[in-house]
Amino acid sequence: MKRLCLQNKNSELFTLTYGALVTQLCKDYENDEEVNKQLDKMGYNIGVRLIEDFLARSSIGRCQDFRETADVIAKVAFKMYLGITPSVTNWSPAGDEFSLILENNPLVDFVELPDNHSTLVYSSLLCGVLRGALEMVQMAVDVRFAQDTLRGDSVTEIRMKFIKRIEENLPAGDE
Amino acid sequence: MKRLCLQNKNSELFTLTYGALVTQLCKDYENDEEVNKQLDKMGYNIGVRLIEDFLARSSIGRCQDFRETADVIAKVAFKMYLGITPSVTNWSPAGDEFSLILENNPLVDFVELPDNHSTLVYSSLLCGVLRGALEMVQMAVDVRFAQDTLRGDSVTEIRMKFIKRIEENLPAGDE
Repeated sequence: MKRLCLQNKNSELFTLTYGALVTQLCKDYENDEEVNKQLDKMGYNIGVRLIEDFLARSSIGRCQDFRETADVIAKVAFKMYLGITPSVTNWSPAGDEFSLILENNPLVDFVELPDNHSTLVYSSLLCGVLRGALEMVQMAVDVRFAQDTLRGDSVTEIRMKFIKRIEENLPAGDE
Repeated sequence: MKRLCLQNKNSELFTLTYGALVTQLCKDYENDEEVNKQLDKMGYNIGVRLIEDFLARSSIGRCQDFRETADVIAKVAFKMYLGITPSVTNWSPAGDEFSLILENNPLVDFVELPDNHSTLVYSSLLCGVLRGALEMVQMAVDVRFAQDTLRGDSVTEIRMKFIKRIEENLPAGDE
């Protein structure tokens, strides 16, 4: 049983359940853009809740900068929830943008996009999760898929851009 | 990181994604019965695919009888995909029915049923998964939730009933 533990234990059930979710949304919505949007929105709602679990389980404190954030996302968060460790690369000169390169995306195991869904960003949920989770630690980020093996790219690339630090809510009355 | 490995690693992300799926279905369908049916159907489609992964990863061969099947489901399959080991109990005198008792159901972490969804069988997907997976190894079973902590029961009980052994498909022409 050791081997199972070292691998991503229940990923297959998760992968197939995620597939059922995407399939349902494709039935529900007119076009891929709308499905992408819904997946991102669902991911956002998941992220704002998942961050609590993440902070509790990882015992990680506030990151010093965006580079540290990138490392924590790749090496701790992705490892914890998806069993993979993307590489962090393609930093912008200003240090406000980077890419996560996923050699394997467990969400798309066995998935093939039908021809009539060529603009579907199948794993959009992940963008929303990252956006929602980071918002809860006062970071506004833009997250999007820049490459996707499902569309024939050789790797999956998630591009993350730092937008701004969100001010903590001031107590009522202070303005 | 050892602790994470011993626990169910990515269950929280799976739990929240499953929640998004159920929420979406509750928006899509008129009533709880229809949602239950859809979840069961999705689970069935997942089960017929998951069995292959299960057989490959577990190296488990054909079970001798329904008792052995029950043990494999509880101790290997639930452990592998949900990180829990339900107890097998309440055997019928004929040995064709048993219950899986889940002390904790990872799918319902943090879930509370709203009053207007009192007949929702939130985890119906699991019944479908079991039904679909077993059908692929020639066992027709009936699977249903007999108790559910979400409805105030102290444990979650999945009741499984053996219906019949499914004949392997005969080659065309043989009748």
